[in-house]
Amino acid sequence: MRKKIVVIGGGTGSFITLSGLKKYPFDLSAIVTMMDDGGSTGKLRDQLGVLPHGDLRQCLIALSDASDTWRKLFNYRFESGDLEGHSFGNILLSALEKVTNSYDETVEEAHKIMTVKGSVIPVTHDKSRIHVEYQSGRVLEGEKFLDEKSIDGDRIKNISLVPKATLNPKVAGAIEDADYIIVGPGDLYSSIISISAVEGFKKVFEVSEAKIIYIMNLMTKSSQTPGYSAQDHIDDFARYFGRQPNYVMINSEDIPKDVVEYYKTESNDIVVAGSVKNVKVILKPLLSPIRSNKKSLHDQVFAHSVIRHDPEKVAAAIVEVVG
Amino acid sequence: MRKKIVVIGGGTGSFITLSGLKKYPFDLSAIVTMMDDGGSTGKLRDQLGVLPHGDLRQCLIALSDASDTWRKLFNYRFESGDLEGHSFGNILLSALEKVTNSYDETVEEAHKIMTVKGSVIPVTHDKSRIHVEYQSGRVLEGEKFLDEKSIDGDRIKNISLVPKATLNPKVAGAIEDADYIIVGPGDLYSSIISISAVEGFKKVFEVSEAKIIYIMNLMTKSSQTPGYSAQDHIDDFARYFGRQPNYVMINSEDIPKDVVEYYKTESNDIVVAGSVKNVKVILKPLLSPIRSNKKSLHDQVFAHSVIRHDPEKVAAAIVEVVG
Repeated sequence: MRKKIVVIGGGTGSFITLSGLKKYPFDLSAIVTMMDDGGSTGKLRDQLGVLPHGDLRQCLIALSDASDTWRKLFNYRFESGDLEGHSFGNILLSALEKVTNSYDETVEEAHKIMTVKGSVIPVTHDKSRIHVEYQSGRVLEGEKFLDEKSIDGDRIKNISLVPKATLNPKVAGAIEDADYIIVGPGDLYSSIISISAVEGFKKVFEVSEAKIIYIMNLMTKSSQTPGYSAQDHIDDFARYFGRQPNYVMINSEDIPKDVVEYYKTESNDIVVAGSVKNVKVILKPLLSPIRSNKKSLHDQVFAHSVIRHDPEKVAAAIVEVVG
Repeated sequence: MRKKIVVIGGGTGSFITLSGLKKYPFDLSAIVTMMDDGGSTGKLRDQLGVLPHGDLRQCLIALSDASDTWRKLFNYRFESGDLEGHSFGNILLSALEKVTNSYDETVEEAHKIMTVKGSVIPVTHDKSRIHVEYQSGRVLEGEKFLDEKSIDGDRIKNISLVPKATLNPKVAGAIEDADYIIVGPGDLYSSIISISAVEGFKKVFEVSEAKIIYIMNLMTKSSQTPGYSAQDHIDDFARYFGRQPNYVMINSEDIPKDVVEYYKTESNDIVVAGSVKNVKVILKPLLSPIRSNKKSLHDQVFAHSVIRHDPEKVAAAIVEVVG
């Protein structure tokens, strides 16, 4: 029987993991965060009252077996006029939500249109935002602020969702059936912990018998994980998810000095592996070659990232564990 | 063998004829005008440099065998925000044109997406506008002006396309193979004669052995056909197309008085059948019941029309001729 693998996270990181794993004979599901409120997704959310579709869109593309034209179309972003900055996939999902008036149907139709191999499951159908409290006392509401540069060293004390979000019933089934759960890569709070903040998620997750593989981010992020070591990531993860990961996968490849310098100007740095307690460390080369050609689908998705995980390397490392 | 029927016109009128004929075992093609420059279509045309897709979109929907959800989706119009007023189908066709960089491929993909039974053929792939000269000396450029109320009685002296448009090679094949060509219903200049103005069209049309059935509009339109009788329509048609129609189909049903009064405020009136020379007149009840429910697909398409032809009645009348 095919092994059941569930990938948890946001659009950018899960796209990498899913597109790598897609080539292997696994039964794949993606549980995707639904808290985005920035960019095209945020505008459509505010202007049309639809759910934020950006992360869902990227996971659908990752698992799509549709023609290259359709996959390009789904990810196409308009460059001028009224539609400037909007992704066609987001527009399609918004129109589907309006026409069907049901988010289950929207997602189901999108699976058909994109000939999705596996399933992409929005963690909730509720329209919630992330509420963030920092140790300094600062309070933010909205995922978009977690993408911006933040005050150096100010750590997140707590996050919650406003209003409370209820779990999409399909999530529980996927978690219960999973043999392995892959977490990330992805921004710890906006892409990963935001999922655990949905009511009922932690309860299902804690009791799952699946093994958890946590793919560590390459770099820290000042607004979410300032100066975080691998252990810091794991500690926060365990606090919100109620379980330690079984494995943590960390990149072993050197990141070019000029790239590190660039990140430092944004107060970000390489995540230090250091010593990790009670979790098996998988140290592997996971880096994607830095590309300058921005025309491929892959680069369209990641135009905003300077360095990133490589789908093939990540998948190969996962396969070594999963078998 | 199935009879080959070609429908010529714009989106609104051809939608009626095509959706009626779709239920019969004909081999259907639609040759569609591509000169629109108003509304959502006009905005996308100006802002993105794409072809005007509005008329094409309606013909694709008419011949679509896709699910009801997909047909509704294709015709869905956003109601707020950046996308306000834009039809999803127009956005899809625009994105396809951008991604494929080929209008042939755009139309081909759209046929697949919409599971089109038959084929919809844009008369040209060139981006042209209608140039209109009136007898008064007035000159207009742009189809959108032909939708507005005009100076009473000022007739069109000549129309041409700026820049000149070349014929889509697929048009010639469809015309040559046709057993019957149905013209309209549709606005005489913006939807019908605009097609004949494409370079090379008249030459192909004149020599066709197909019988021509001209479906007469219900009402005159001050900017295009002020005070026109049926014979006036036929005369202008023959002048631009190089042939007389074989049949002219005219509505025999009474139009409610209050509706006629409404049209008169816009300087429009019932098209008088009168005496028609050398063309066989088919006088039939062709009126669609006036609906108040604006929620059906049909009504979404025609929300701007008070009275219109009925698809079933039009198709039944055509079938009586075609057999």
